[in-house]
Amino acid sequence: MKHLFLALLLFTMQAKSQINTEDSLFIRQIFDEALTNSTCYDVLRHLCKEIGPRLSGSRGAAEAVDYLHSTFKKEGFDSVFLQEMLVPHWVRGSVCKVSSAGGQNTFSACALGNSMGGKATAKVLMVEHVEDLDSLDPAQIKGKIVFFTRPMEPRHINTFKAYGGCVDQRWAGPSKAAKYGAVATMVRSMSHKEDEFPHTGSMSYDTLYPKIPAVALATASASRLKKMLEQNPNTIIEIETDCYTLPDTISHNVIAQYNGTEIPGAYMIVGGHLDAWDNGEGAHDDGAGCVQSYEAIRILKNLGYKPRNNLRAVMFMNEENGLRGAKKYAELTAKNRETHTAAIESDRGGFSPRGFAIETNNKETLALFESWKPLLSPYGLTDILEGSGGADIGPLKSGGTLCIGYLPDSQRYFDHHHAGSDTFEEVNKRELELGAASMAALIYLMDKYGVVAGASD
Amino acid sequence: MKHLFLALLLFTMQAKSQINTEDSLFIRQIFDEALTNSTCYDVLRHLCKEIGPRLSGSRGAAEAVDYLHSTFKKEGFDSVFLQEMLVPHWVRGSVCKVSSAGGQNTFSACALGNSMGGKATAKVLMVEHVEDLDSLDPAQIKGKIVFFTRPMEPRHINTFKAYGGCVDQRWAGPSKAAKYGAVATMVRSMSHKEDEFPHTGSMSYDTLYPKIPAVALATASASRLKKMLEQNPNTIIEIETDCYTLPDTISHNVIAQYNGTEIPGAYMIVGGHLDAWDNGEGAHDDGAGCVQSYEAIRILKNLGYKPRNNLRAVMFMNEENGLRGAKKYAELTAKNRETHTAAIESDRGGFSPRGFAIETNNKETLALFESWKPLLSPYGLTDILEGSGGADIGPLKSGGTLCIGYLPDSQRYFDHHHAGSDTFEEVNKRELELGAASMAALIYLMDKYGVVAGASD
Repeated sequence: MKHLFLALLLFTMQAKSQINTEDSLFIRQIFDEALTNSTCYDVLRHLCKEIGPRLSGSRGAAEAVDYLHSTFKKEGFDSVFLQEMLVPHWVRGSVCKVSSAGGQNTFSACALGNSMGGKATAKVLMVEHVEDLDSLDPAQIKGKIVFFTRPMEPRHINTFKAYGGCVDQRWAGPSKAAKYGAVATMVRSMSHKEDEFPHTGSMSYDTLYPKIPAVALATASASRLKKMLEQNPNTIIEIETDCYTLPDTISHNVIAQYNGTEIPGAYMIVGGHLDAWDNGEGAHDDGAGCVQSYEAIRILKNLGYKPRNNLRAVMFMNEENGLRGAKKYAELTAKNRETHTAAIESDRGGFSPRGFAIETNNKETLALFESWKPLLSPYGLTDILEGSGGADIGPLKSGGTLCIGYLPDSQRYFDHHHAGSDTFEEVNKRELELGAASMAALIYLMDKYGVVAGASD
Repeated sequence: MKHLFLALLLFTMQAKSQINTEDSLFIRQIFDEALTNSTCYDVLRHLCKEIGPRLSGSRGAAEAVDYLHSTFKKEGFDSVFLQEMLVPHWVRGSVCKVSSAGGQNTFSACALGNSMGGKATAKVLMVEHVEDLDSLDPAQIKGKIVFFTRPMEPRHINTFKAYGGCVDQRWAGPSKAAKYGAVATMVRSMSHKEDEFPHTGSMSYDTLYPKIPAVALATASASRLKKMLEQNPNTIIEIETDCYTLPDTISHNVIAQYNGTEIPGAYMIVGGHLDAWDNGEGAHDDGAGCVQSYEAIRILKNLGYKPRNNLRAVMFMNEENGLRGAKKYAELTAKNRETHTAAIESDRGGFSPRGFAIETNNKETLALFESWKPLLSPYGLTDILEGSGGADIGPLKSGGTLCIGYLPDSQRYFDHHHAGSDTFEEVNKRELELGAASMAALIYLMDKYGVVAGASD
């Protein structure tokens, strides 16, 4: 393995001088193939419209595994296979009601992923920050429904920064409230858009405290309720959910491999996650990333490119509420001594390309990517920067993999993320295809010139 | 005027050394203001949902003039005024039918702007290029309906290039067909998206030949008809439209001015066009450009910025089928001796910012804009390149104005351009606001440091 990395390092050193017209022409061919012969939009249509919701453990998830397994086989990859693992099996149930007592005012809501069903009827305590609860008199919290009201910060240009800045309310809010005796929690949906689609997403119970019901309110409903509570702080709110958790069940990652020709045991992968929240179609999150990953490898195969490394498209299972697919994949790469040099993840929507986040602070590696900018910027890939690769490829990092996140335009992503509006119709065919070609282009460059993750400075 | 330009040139020379933290902080304030206090999305909602279609000469166009005039007055600009001109008054009528004889198969179609109503029942001649007609035996064309079938090229990354590469079929196709005795024309809609929305747009009759009916077919209908004709070339098609042209009528540009403090008689403007095709709501084309222009000046005013030049937001009338507003505006600037140093146009949709096209080949000016990249790229404005400013500001060029086109992401624009799907719902609030801030930032830099169009090399 050490020799392999040294060999790759040598390739890296030669890189700058080798960028040439051949690369420019081949990347043009990659984009032409994506924009004229792609099948990824139709595969996404099937995933969204014929299968739809596919949360881990659901029938939809199993159907999605079968569908992509057979689709990849028909496509003629060198090998197509499944990786089995146990996944959590949370079920939303059929009830999620939030209303003022007596039902005069109802609010658009959905249960948070992993939460337990239950009922609560109580006055409401509004807080902006999870930590605010620590400084209040517990008597103010006990018996209340806690309503976390902090909206996504509109001033961040990158919406992922805004999401990161308020998702703690959803993830950690319920147990913090339960610690002080709250009977349920509500959180304003993580979205900049003011509408009536509630946005779900994972929460986590601290085993020390009671598992209280936890819901998200649509942004418009959250604004309306906040106003109502400001006018009448004694308003009684009723919450009812009936979600529950079944025993872990078997599910799978789906993998398509296109064999390398020069470096046995070395791999470069591109992936997205196949599971999707149950309230939408999982179009941008992350059907898009799945079909783009498949398409990226398909393009290179169809153009007759002979990769040095083995290339894989990996459809990870259970990103949303467990990351079990990601963990299983990393576990098996170690067990099977598969050296994963580089991994690209597409899990930020199927929007117009902007660039890549490179998860390293190795200056040589960053300089190599910087040197590729002239080849990538004609396709809108102008943001080549240091940043996080993504959740599903994260477990590969400890094995020395260079992790890279594909960065599409972020403005519309959280309008649909984890919501009923994450539908096929919101995905633009060309934007989807351009993303697939972007990843194929980067795989081509990395495969040809070699990359190393390197140690942090 | 010469002294003014020399003075501005001096400012230009000093520019590079003057970019500093102050600029960076003020541009940040501009974006913060746009993302937190903007009213442009609500103004666009009114333009689209309360007024809607507003083709030159229509009641909608007159209402839009009144609405923006009163909106700008309430906003407290230094002056708000109208510029009167005569505009063409084309009316679509209520009928546009395209079907196979007997009506068994119908096709989604709309009349082209400026075309005359009429009926035709004939066999169809399919051609890919307008010029193909010149090399055919005229007997093959005479008495036929000519169907221009060339789709937008999918391989161009910038969709405007693809549009430019096939719009001749719409603009010049009808008269070329009439020249050889055709009785009507159909053209495949200029859109990459396969759907049933026909896309209208201007055509122009050559006065030498008969004014035959001319329609656009939705892309999905065009594909279906092409297939049908390939299977049965003798298929008879019936076309009926009842559009007509009324005498020219009075309309207006609407202008809001924020007074400069240092350079009397010097102006910088930002504008879009207020008229919009009658089959949609004119949301991206070009309600977005109008409200962004208004918002750009409003932001600078609300932040208390004291411009050196007089700043104007200009809502041009009649871009779609005459450009009379643009011509009138340029005519009056000359008459009133208003030196227009720079003009920005937003008429490529309200999508996520990508950059600006600078209409000059003056190397110093281009270098100045290049030097501003570090200030603009944090906001997605990475494409600062030489290119066309736009149709409405075009007539100012001969007066020495530096013309600049705002460049949003182009992928989705032609999905909606001139079609019934150009609705308010397709505009993302943040993307719209980011565009307004982008233009405000550039106006700020140009106003502070000065720019010159300069002669071509």
